[in-house]
Amino acid sequence: MSETVLHVCTTCRSEGDTSEPRAGARLFAALREEAERLGVPGLRIEPVECLSVCKRPCTVAVASRDRWTYVYGDLDPVESARTILEGVARYAGTPDGIVPWRERPQEFRKGVVARIPSFTTVPDAS
Amino acid sequence: MSETVLHVCTTCRSEGDTSEPRAGARLFAALREEAERLGVPGLRIEPVECLSVCKRPCTVAVASRDRWTYVYGDLDPVESARTILEGVARYAGTPDGIVPWRERPQEFRKGVVARIPSFTTVPDAS
Repeated sequence: MSETVLHVCTTCRSEGDTSEPRAGARLFAALREEAERLGVPGLRIEPVECLSVCKRPCTVAVASRDRWTYVYGDLDPVESARTILEGVARYAGTPDGIVPWRERPQEFRKGVVARIPSFTTVPDAS
Repeated sequence: MSETVLHVCTTCRSEGDTSEPRAGARLFAALREEAERLGVPGLRIEPVECLSVCKRPCTVAVASRDRWTYVYGDLDPVESARTILEGVARYAGTPDGIVPWRERPQEFRKGVVARIPSFTTVPDAS
């Protein structure tokens, strides 16, 4: 099973929030802490300086070599951590990264910014 | 040098435009035609049913195994084809997919939806 990578934008600021560390950095810390607490095998959580989704903080991207990549925004720097990890676990449990709509966390349904096929994805239109 | 893949959403509709083929499918056809005319080595243009950027048609994603992936929206189904291919050529000419801001086509500067690190990208924050 391919490793899953959770890229977390640490540059994201919540609107009107000038405090440090930034919301994105707080989300990254919360995710690392929660993942350590839960124990999530096969998951790598990586900070990234910018995912270019600056209008929808906080933002993350979930990727895996053989699966679709998903980008999510509008995430809460603290409250979202557990939900994100639950969503990522469902993602990691699929062969292609596509989680049935009803099984996706509400945050992922509302917050989807984009999705990109993997290099191994069979084209689904022609 | 890694192959570059240009994913083109063929489901995208321009606002208020109910004609068939859809704007996304027209963009895909225009890109294939223009790429054939120009001859673009190392580029694979793939149709995809949805990139989940439905509010900013037309949309494409530019990806390569060793480079950042970029997602762009707000593209014109006809006029953008040549510009996209120029932008993709610049992307393919970099080691990591990051084209200096001034060298990016205007459509790519304004239309960026998200970017995602490659699996080989060295984390740039910690």
